Amino acid sequence: MSGQPIALDGFGTDARPAPEIDAAIRSAGAGVRVDLVGDQARLGEALEQRLDELDARAHADAISIIHAAEQIGMDESPARAVRAKPDASLCVAMNRVRSGEAAAVVSAGNSGAILAAALFRLGRIRGIDRPAIVANLPQVDGSHDAVMIDAGANTECSVLNLVQFAVLGAIWSRHWHGVARPRVGVLANGQEAGKGTALTRGAHKLLADHAVERGADSMFEFVGHVEPNRLFFGACDVVVTDGWTGNVALKLAEGAMVAWPQMLARAIAAQHGAASITGAIEPALRELERRFDPEAHGGAPLLGVDGAVIICHGASGPRALHSALLMARRFAERGLIDAIARTIADHRELFELARTLR
Amino acid sequence: MSGQPIALDGFGTDARPAPEIDAAIRSAGAGVRVDLVGDQARLGEALEQRLDELDARAHADAISIIHAAEQIGMDESPARAVRAKPDASLCVAMNRVRSGEAAAVVSAGNSGAILAAALFRLGRIRGIDRPAIVANLPQVDGSHDAVMIDAGANTECSVLNLVQFAVLGAIWSRHWHGVARPRVGVLANGQEAGKGTALTRGAHKLLADHAVERGADSMFEFVGHVEPNRLFFGACDVVVTDGWTGNVALKLAEGAMVAWPQMLARAIAAQHGAASITGAIEPALRELERRFDPEAHGGAPLLGVDGAVIICHGASGPRALHSALLMARRFAERGLIDAIARTIADHRELFELARTLR
Repeated sequence: MSGQPIALDGFGTDARPAPEIDAAIRSAGAGVRVDLVGDQARLGEALEQRLDELDARAHADAISIIHAAEQIGMDESPARAVRAKPDASLCVAMNRVRSGEAAAVVSAGNSGAILAAALFRLGRIRGIDRPAIVANLPQVDGSHDAVMIDAGANTECSVLNLVQFAVLGAIWSRHWHGVARPRVGVLANGQEAGKGTALTRGAHKLLADHAVERGADSMFEFVGHVEPNRLFFGACDVVVTDGWTGNVALKLAEGAMVAWPQMLARAIAAQHGAASITGAIEPALRELERRFDPEAHGGAPLLGVDGAVIICHGASGPRALHSALLMARRFAERGLIDAIARTIADHRELFELARTLR
Repeated sequence: MSGQPIALDGFGTDARPAPEIDAAIRSAGAGVRVDLVGDQARLGEALEQRLDELDARAHADAISIIHAAEQIGMDESPARAVRAKPDASLCVAMNRVRSGEAAAVVSAGNSGAILAAALFRLGRIRGIDRPAIVANLPQVDGSHDAVMIDAGANTECSVLNLVQFAVLGAIWSRHWHGVARPRVGVLANGQEAGKGTALTRGAHKLLADHAVERGADSMFEFVGHVEPNRLFFGACDVVVTDGWTGNVALKLAEGAMVAWPQMLARAIAAQHGAASITGAIEPALRELERRFDPEAHGGAPLLGVDGAVIICHGASGPRALHSALLMARRFAERGLIDAIARTIADHRELFELARTLR
């Protein structure tokens, strides 16, 4: 048990606050201090009950309940809700990081509201225009995950945003996945420089020029436009896209990968007329589901705000939230915020150039 | 052997013209007449050789070689190439349909060039502003495929385009998949009407109003915004999106579904230390690959031009091209072009309303 606590929004998931309470207990058992944020009376009573039920009284000291009178709903207008409800669990959780009382925030609430609360309460890292969400893409050869940025924070993006995402993604790849000099690409519908949209071509040109100019001194290698179907096959370490395209594409791929094993099971049953073989491959199927499951990754980091923030699915269970709490601790411990600030400062000229476009 | 021939661009695939020649022979064997379009000398010699090698001389009469002196490369600027090379195999193939000598065109060439050649040579169906590509999405419950439109013809789209895609997709779903009253949705990052982009919200509003106005008389049911991860699980019969989003999302999902079985095989091998179980599920894996493989669907129809056009991947082999030729024949035989023309005329008011936006 060491370090600062992680602030966990107690009222984020669809099944709030039960998954949050179980996750807090599980993480406390794994040595993570948790500030569970939300209505004191509701959380206190439920926590006591679960500590007994789970026979986890030994971990009670690692969990503090931080009172927050309100909640933000999934269907509320994000920016408005954050402004109108300063005492919402999400906002109070952000305050804990701003004040230095907590090391990071984890929330499975309305992702637009998490973004707004992070922007209003923590602010952006100097030099960053828009924060972005990082998603992990597993690789067929079993090597470290590639990262996609932005996975959904910004529905509309400028060339400047994409160029900043490239740098943010490269920092994440280096610090999280240990890639010394990440290969960065821009997502497009073909590899040629002329493919893509005005947006991707603009980012392509600036990043290519930058790579030539800096040469071996560049912190990343630029690999040009990257096609989506190669992203699981080592095409690059970081793929940059706008948050609309990234979000829709990831969700379709996610759906495909949930559909796949179900279709496989049906096909096997039809061919073998028995569940024996399905049973034999069941553990392998489960393992793959874990690898592909975004929840098993513990949520997605929000990069570019001045604090460690992890966004989880509304449907997250205790396991997913627990992973997110572990991820948040690692995020905070790695000094990533400082690394981002330094690296962004080092790329000021690139961003100024991008700013002159459009 | 009946009906008009299908014009097959002899120089479309990456491995041109070998896959085209084998596909023509295979399709001829299945009762399809093929006009194989391209350089007479090259095609003639290669065809003779393959007819002997495949012992398929009996099908020789079903294949006619139509001379075309030029080819369009994968890296050429589509519209420019189509204008500069009227004698390209692709253009000559389109001419065969325009003149009524062939029933449909199949090409695995540069998809931008296929679109341009179709627009210049066949023209649009009256009332249609932009043709669109249809992709099939298999369903977990084994029921008919859903369709996504546009899967890649138009990188930038207006509300009018999306509304027209909705009608085109509904016609395809009805005539191809037998869905009496297709459920149409607009692809978005959330189900609520307020999600998505200005583009999807514009299409959402017009389609919702139209559905209310027509009531039970509407040829389709409008189901609102549809999330990508539900598209394999019966969310709708037709999902409408712009060609950039559709293309990128489909390619990521395609990559995921190629990656999945490879990762599964590795996981099984790691757990069982033997290939025995992988061997047992091999047939099921192959069947699923076929279901998901866009090539096995025989390419993607281009809807909205005044003729039956099927676009195949550049990497297509003889099997994929053969499927496309069968699909093209069915496309032409179903009177879909007439059905589209009638249905488009019946939705003129909706389109005029959409035209006033932006």
